[in-house]
Amino acid sequence: MSKILRVNMTDLTTKFEDVPEKYRLTGGRGLTSAITCAEVPPTCHPLGPNNKLTFAPGILTATGAPTAGRLSVGGKAPLTGTIKETNAGGMAADKLARLDIKAIIVEGQPKEKGKFWLLKVDKDGAQLMPADEWTGKGLYETYPKLFAKFGKDVGIISIGVAGERLMAMAGVCVNDPEGRPSRYAGRGGMGAVMGSKGLKAIIVDDKGGSGVAIANKDAFNTGRKKLTDALREHAITKPGGTLNTYGTAALVNVINEAGAFPTRNFREGRFEGASKISGETINETCKKRGGVGMTGHRCSPGCIIQCSNVYPKPDGTELVSCQEYESVWSLGADCGIDDLDVTGELIRLCNDYGLDTIEAGVTIGVAMDAGLAKFGDGKKAIELMHEIGKGTPLGHILGNGAEVTARTFGVVRCPTVKGQAMPAYEPRAIKGIGVTYATSTMGADHTSGYTIAPEILGVSGKLDPFTVEKAEVSRNFQYATAFLDTTGHCLFIAFAILDIASGFEGMVEECNGVLGTNWTTDDATRIGGDIVKMERAFNEAAGFTKVDDRLPEFMKYEKLPPHNVVYDVPDAVLDKVHNP
Amino acid sequence: MSKILRVNMTDLTTKFEDVPEKYRLTGGRGLTSAITCAEVPPTCHPLGPNNKLTFAPGILTATGAPTAGRLSVGGKAPLTGTIKETNAGGMAADKLARLDIKAIIVEGQPKEKGKFWLLKVDKDGAQLMPADEWTGKGLYETYPKLFAKFGKDVGIISIGVAGERLMAMAGVCVNDPEGRPSRYAGRGGMGAVMGSKGLKAIIVDDKGGSGVAIANKDAFNTGRKKLTDALREHAITKPGGTLNTYGTAALVNVINEAGAFPTRNFREGRFEGASKISGETINETCKKRGGVGMTGHRCSPGCIIQCSNVYPKPDGTELVSCQEYESVWSLGADCGIDDLDVTGELIRLCNDYGLDTIEAGVTIGVAMDAGLAKFGDGKKAIELMHEIGKGTPLGHILGNGAEVTARTFGVVRCPTVKGQAMPAYEPRAIKGIGVTYATSTMGADHTSGYTIAPEILGVSGKLDPFTVEKAEVSRNFQYATAFLDTTGHCLFIAFAILDIASGFEGMVEECNGVLGTNWTTDDATRIGGDIVKMERAFNEAAGFTKVDDRLPEFMKYEKLPPHNVVYDVPDAVLDKVHNP
Repeated sequence: MSKILRVNMTDLTTKFEDVPEKYRLTGGRGLTSAITCAEVPPTCHPLGPNNKLTFAPGILTATGAPTAGRLSVGGKAPLTGTIKETNAGGMAADKLARLDIKAIIVEGQPKEKGKFWLLKVDKDGAQLMPADEWTGKGLYETYPKLFAKFGKDVGIISIGVAGERLMAMAGVCVNDPEGRPSRYAGRGGMGAVMGSKGLKAIIVDDKGGSGVAIANKDAFNTGRKKLTDALREHAITKPGGTLNTYGTAALVNVINEAGAFPTRNFREGRFEGASKISGETINETCKKRGGVGMTGHRCSPGCIIQCSNVYPKPDGTELVSCQEYESVWSLGADCGIDDLDVTGELIRLCNDYGLDTIEAGVTIGVAMDAGLAKFGDGKKAIELMHEIGKGTPLGHILGNGAEVTARTFGVVRCPTVKGQAMPAYEPRAIKGIGVTYATSTMGADHTSGYTIAPEILGVSGKLDPFTVEKAEVSRNFQYATAFLDTTGHCLFIAFAILDIASGFEGMVEECNGVLGTNWTTDDATRIGGDIVKMERAFNEAAGFTKVDDRLPEFMKYEKLPPHNVVYDVPDAVLDKVHNP
Repeated sequence: MSKILRVNMTDLTTKFEDVPEKYRLTGGRGLTSAITCAEVPPTCHPLGPNNKLTFAPGILTATGAPTAGRLSVGGKAPLTGTIKETNAGGMAADKLARLDIKAIIVEGQPKEKGKFWLLKVDKDGAQLMPADEWTGKGLYETYPKLFAKFGKDVGIISIGVAGERLMAMAGVCVNDPEGRPSRYAGRGGMGAVMGSKGLKAIIVDDKGGSGVAIANKDAFNTGRKKLTDALREHAITKPGGTLNTYGTAALVNVINEAGAFPTRNFREGRFEGASKISGETINETCKKRGGVGMTGHRCSPGCIIQCSNVYPKPDGTELVSCQEYESVWSLGADCGIDDLDVTGELIRLCNDYGLDTIEAGVTIGVAMDAGLAKFGDGKKAIELMHEIGKGTPLGHILGNGAEVTARTFGVVRCPTVKGQAMPAYEPRAIKGIGVTYATSTMGADHTSGYTIAPEILGVSGKLDPFTVEKAEVSRNFQYATAFLDTTGHCLFIAFAILDIASGFEGMVEECNGVLGTNWTTDDATRIGGDIVKMERAFNEAAGFTKVDDRLPEFMKYEKLPPHNVVYDVPDAVLDKVHNP
């Protein structure tokens, strides 16, 4: 991809620039983080004029590489104050790449507050136009209107009302293949950054786009085949395999069995209602209710894993896509809720208002701990979610995430790291994922170093979840992931490439094919490590220290049932992750 | 003072301990900070079981030294996450000292949330009793009942409903000589720490107390006379002088004239309504309305400055004590309000609910900037304050201070340092006070290094407010102040002792008299410096870096009228304050 589109929201101009040499061999997270480090003052206010928001497809997006349609969104995050890269599937990354656009950088800030613009990008260029008619509404209402206006085949990157209101749990939404507002670069509040720029949506029309140049087609095709074979072979990623059949929620029963399924705001590690919100139940219900219900749904072009689902109402009409593991956990178990119709409705509201489901669920869990609702009260959880949609004071509290909610109501049991809510794995019962939560450059984030693979799933070997010496494994996962997030591949290829060496080689060879490089798998890890180090340097300049690389204090003195364990990984182990 | 009272709220026990040798020669802030550093883990949650709350009179409290009745309150602060010492006048410090109690340390946390206790301390010991009948009510209702129950001559240290609800702008209240709930150790949210301990109030009955031992009466009396003479001579502190006649609000016109009177959430440096809320107007109105109205009111025993006031309603009955400079500014100019009857009512509500007036006013200013009310709308400001009293979601937002309010509503113009609202001096127009705000161990705090003295008032020499080389002057003020806060003297003696050398000597000689030491004035500065260094070490261990020693970013790009200046003190100057 040869162009960078720079959009200045202060003077409402757009301009295309050549890709500088220093960015030529990167993409996705590698590129968004490099641009953030180069152009954003680390101490700037995330919602002020000096932050920038960068969108980038991966190196391999739209090349024909399997499951490589991720869109990276980067900048300084309102939720954490750290650097941030969060990525989503959906249709937009593929279309940007087909337009030969390696990144969109959005900078500046309109003088007039509360006014929003829409950016249209196509083969002829880019233009900004007022977005008044698209603002203040739910995305299930807005997306069809945008398709009606701009054509049914465009990609849409947008924010919901939460982002318009600068709420720090606002995500950036991308349409799925059927046009739903359902795929989210959710974490860190990047939707609020987009809102602070006065940018409501980006419409990407790739008609007539030049496509992505491939330097060495043989190398690419060899790599692509190796990776595709690995994905088709591994039990988790293959057609009819775990993810394809049950979706990510296949993890519910597994993690619950391990006593690491955070329940009722991280008070317990096992949920009595887990089986009711499991992947198996999702699969059964989709079959039983029929209608539009399906598992094995594809969230982005060229995905061969296809782990998404479309969850039906009892009458077979659509409730929501998609009931993910993280979402049924956060809006389910963490709130004491064991009903997929309730989690489905809550997920639908997150999609409609433009929210990160993880942050939303953990926040409602904290609010329940504060006494705003009883654990398990789905009706009240839905009401709380509507407060966000309505923009009431309570909605503003909740919309700013778990930490602001905990501070506002004086809740000490606040399961966040660097201000970001923990995902669906209890670190007291799985020590390595806690090492990642604590030391990730992104705040608490399972995707930045998924040690669950060896600790629970037996992927890439088997580690005891209770042993504390997890510095090296977390570091290795963090480095490898940073590279993977740069390629545009979905993280879920990791299951296959961790177990099948030729798959990992294939991913690197795909990159060599596109870029004309000669990287080895060692280079991939080195490049990933360099990205993480660059991100850490940003965070250090923003004021973060090793004191921030810690789990919340309550996990050190509150014992988690059923194993009755505290988080006992020594600080020295945490400090070793990035200082080996 | 020979005893420390340790109160354990987990098992509801009290015990008296001898003062360890290491604490023998300190008091006030020196003691609260030393105990916090020794006993509180720097990374603990401020509202969790591992924080401790320490109360301490100064070295000179109840010795007969003039204007030395301050009570220091210390621990880790919810508002800032830093170490905190905040002190108040009122009756309690004097009575604690007369009971020979050098400090009360409150530790642990009751299992049962929302239940409160009352601590009664007298010559026979200390006991905890349920406080149910005293909770959930305004302090103007509670204090008279406490006096009726425990006698009219007791000292009361307590929290209001804001502290009960763990709000981070909750202060710790002390009764004034007439029994009003009006003197506040306001800053940092130490009232929320008290609330988190389940401690509603401390009743101090000094009847039959042994009094404070004085090691060398001659030295003490010599020092006391020197200081008293200086206070009686200096134009600012003498009877009939500036403070005695106009109160602290004498500063309104001075700072406004300097273009450094923060107006409408720090958008401007001069307020068109300043003269209506000035000390001169307070004085005139007290005379004109008559009744209980008075200036020259004394807030604590033995004060010879007497800068407080009792402000009357139009009919001469009492509205509030007291209309301080900081309060009429924060709840006045910073909200665009130019009516002393409105600021008086807002101050009264702060006293009633248990709030820091500075944080409360700046927070309402931020809320106005967020569009919750129009600047200047006093009626709406009062309604917002009642939200705090009612404990609504909006009240919880506001009750947690300016930074939480700014985050919740996405306001970038947030005038805080380390989470604490700036006081009534615009750092863009008075550079040195900005150096103190940025580098104080306490967050934005004028009292920790009051460079206004030379920069505006010509006390201790005269400095140009616009020159940026203010590292040394801020450091010297921070060190000297830390010593002063240790003696129990009110900061306002500083005007006299800065200009009159014998006054400074007198303060040190008073200490030598009480403690049997041979300190010089150089020792005083050295001791103060050691306290500041100890506090900084705590903050560093809590994760603070030089990046935290900065003013908010908006002050670097928004020009402040009328001088149209940004904050241009180089970071290198800020870094030099504590690294000379």
